[in-house]
Amino acid sequence: MHRVVVIGSGFAGLNAVKALRRAPVAVTLVASTNHHLFQPLLYQVATGILSTGEIAPPTREVLRRQANATVALGEVVALDADARSVGVRLADGTMRSVAYDSLIVGGGMVTSYFGNERFERFAHGMKSLEDALALRAQIFGAFENAQWIDEPAARAAELTFAIVGGGPTGVELAGQIGELAHRSLVAEFRSFATTQARILLFDGAPRILPTFPERLSARAAAALERLGVELHLGTTVADIDGESITVAGPDGARRRIPAHTRIWAAGVRAAPLAQIVADATGAATDRLGRLAVAEDCSLRERPEIFVVGDMMDLAGLPGLAEVAMQSGRHAARVIAARAGGDAPPRPFRYHDLGTMAAVSRTSAVASFGRLGLSGRIGWLAWLVVHLAFLTGFKNRVTTVVHWAITFLGNAREERAI
Amino acid sequence: MHRVVVIGSGFAGLNAVKALRRAPVAVTLVASTNHHLFQPLLYQVATGILSTGEIAPPTREVLRRQANATVALGEVVALDADARSVGVRLADGTMRSVAYDSLIVGGGMVTSYFGNERFERFAHGMKSLEDALALRAQIFGAFENAQWIDEPAARAAELTFAIVGGGPTGVELAGQIGELAHRSLVAEFRSFATTQARILLFDGAPRILPTFPERLSARAAAALERLGVELHLGTTVADIDGESITVAGPDGARRRIPAHTRIWAAGVRAAPLAQIVADATGAATDRLGRLAVAEDCSLRERPEIFVVGDMMDLAGLPGLAEVAMQSGRHAARVIAARAGGDAPPRPFRYHDLGTMAAVSRTSAVASFGRLGLSGRIGWLAWLVVHLAFLTGFKNRVTTVVHWAITFLGNAREERAI
Repeated sequence: MHRVVVIGSGFAGLNAVKALRRAPVAVTLVASTNHHLFQPLLYQVATGILSTGEIAPPTREVLRRQANATVALGEVVALDADARSVGVRLADGTMRSVAYDSLIVGGGMVTSYFGNERFERFAHGMKSLEDALALRAQIFGAFENAQWIDEPAARAAELTFAIVGGGPTGVELAGQIGELAHRSLVAEFRSFATTQARILLFDGAPRILPTFPERLSARAAAALERLGVELHLGTTVADIDGESITVAGPDGARRRIPAHTRIWAAGVRAAPLAQIVADATGAATDRLGRLAVAEDCSLRERPEIFVVGDMMDLAGLPGLAEVAMQSGRHAARVIAARAGGDAPPRPFRYHDLGTMAAVSRTSAVASFGRLGLSGRIGWLAWLVVHLAFLTGFKNRVTTVVHWAITFLGNAREERAI
Repeated sequence: MHRVVVIGSGFAGLNAVKALRRAPVAVTLVASTNHHLFQPLLYQVATGILSTGEIAPPTREVLRRQANATVALGEVVALDADARSVGVRLADGTMRSVAYDSLIVGGGMVTSYFGNERFERFAHGMKSLEDALALRAQIFGAFENAQWIDEPAARAAELTFAIVGGGPTGVELAGQIGELAHRSLVAEFRSFATTQARILLFDGAPRILPTFPERLSARAAAALERLGVELHLGTTVADIDGESITVAGPDGARRRIPAHTRIWAAGVRAAPLAQIVADATGAATDRLGRLAVAEDCSLRERPEIFVVGDMMDLAGLPGLAEVAMQSGRHAARVIAARAGGDAPPRPFRYHDLGTMAAVSRTSAVASFGRLGLSGRIGWLAWLVVHLAFLTGFKNRVTTVVHWAITFLGNAREERAI
């Protein structure tokens, strides 16, 4: 039986495994977490809306009925492309070797500080469940701490949330922290007004959500400002330390802003696995560390190795869940065709299904080709699409309940710190 | 305004605050967590059924409409009974002093190893949300690890779950791990049978659930054995290390059993706060460190200080949620009467509403006075009572969904590790 090893249980890897359901192959999914992660909703865990299980269904359960798929927990830390095997480090530190005939690499991205690695200690990243839980403790902890602080400047610093990065993650976090400060938490504190909180969003670009049409960026910016979020565009980060962020505005002037919560949603780069693959195969990497692939998502140097999802450098495709799902399925189709002796499928072509970002409790922007939606209509589109793409029926049910609690009842239930 | 400080957001403290809703007092609830904890369902977080938010609603949200109550996050580490103030350590390590006219102490219990403190490193406790999350990672991690182990003895050790303590927590954990091994996880692993798992329950007493009628203990024991749980009664723990547990059976013979998961549900003692109160007031403590109180739940030495819940030593009352709730409400009534110049209420008298323990997915034992229920009927009683007592309507809704998922669909959604 043709052995397929898939690395990573994200959108790319999980969809590759599922697409091999009926192929005459034996699939092993190796992942460093026991769950799939619905990354676009990570910000809702960080702001107390959803539980971890709702955006992170167990991979084993998702695949329990797929008889040709085995799930294995471990981190791939080595690749021997000649021997066709990957080296997996287990939880106890021991190593195992797993042999493949075809390999699908979907290792995803990690937070990148663009050479300012010293920022890592002082600014929360937003790529993993651990990141989101740490940020949740930080955000709700800041309000708790503020209650004990009488000195105005110290309280202001405690209640300042500095977010770097005007892409969807930064915008969605800013919007939800705004909702907390101006709506959800208002009635819960007696000794100070949570509306004193300052939420600052910094980006070097002249507008937020730069991948969206300009009109939608403007709508999103207006919705954020209605929630009290201060947008600082054309502004770059000069320094971050344990108490503050220093930025340079469009005029070049530097300002140091005391801020006890600092969030880095400004950039990503390929996970270290990409470099392991590049070293083992000679494949080229781009400036984000992504691996250059041929038009069928395989490496030119090793046609039995496929790179899918965010880690793939192909035709300038962006790091979106939809690109990951489609590329994972494409690699699976190529492998299934080879294993079955069929003609290869046509080259991978991304079908753009649109992008969206939720700005507040009742407002989102959504871009589908020439159609742009915003406000409540955009939010309804956001709701339908996200429910449709959440993995697993059961999570959809509890997620709907939690969304009703949050969006109608204005409460946050998932915030034990 | 009469100032009441309540320490602890458990069943006792939270119910004391709520019972002061209409009293002419200003209440400050000081707690070291930002949530109430529904401890009787902690085992369901540890076994992947419920999310943390479902058993740990935010204290602030529970009290958001109670205008005379303020919530403050911090740990009480000092008491000056003459000055009538408590010392609170904040998250940043600084200290604050909070003055009271009346004080209600509801600090609860911590895991006790009965002088074998070296066991703590090697056996999971089950008192806090952190305990439950650590145990969840251990339990689901054991099955993940077992998949990589081919050597039979090593795999058997990885899949051996040793639970010390035959009270409700030990029984409920054993039952749910049995459910995982024999039902929920069976279809998720390909390379070994999860039914190989051994679940061992140890207790020095001759039967499990010793506070229940003998007939119900026997029913619960039979239900556990049907789930593959091995009961070792009349058996004491001689040693626990990082790989095994050593027990002495009724015949006195020692046996060392390799077990990678070791759980200590055998005992509790009063949290360190009790000793702080004893030192500051001269109040007596019993062998569990609980504080002796008068029949109105106040300290004889300091009538303005009340001790409620598990930390209270009164008439041999057991450490049950219902005792905690009733004693918290009683202390509140005494304070309200004093503040309002009314006659004091009658001495505290515990109204026994019964006890129950869920053994498996469809079986529970419930004891209401002379009425004893078991099996499916017991389970229905368990369901109704637990839903009624869960704090907050919203949590009840998602909890019902998660219970439907688990008990009907046989799946575990909350197990990201």
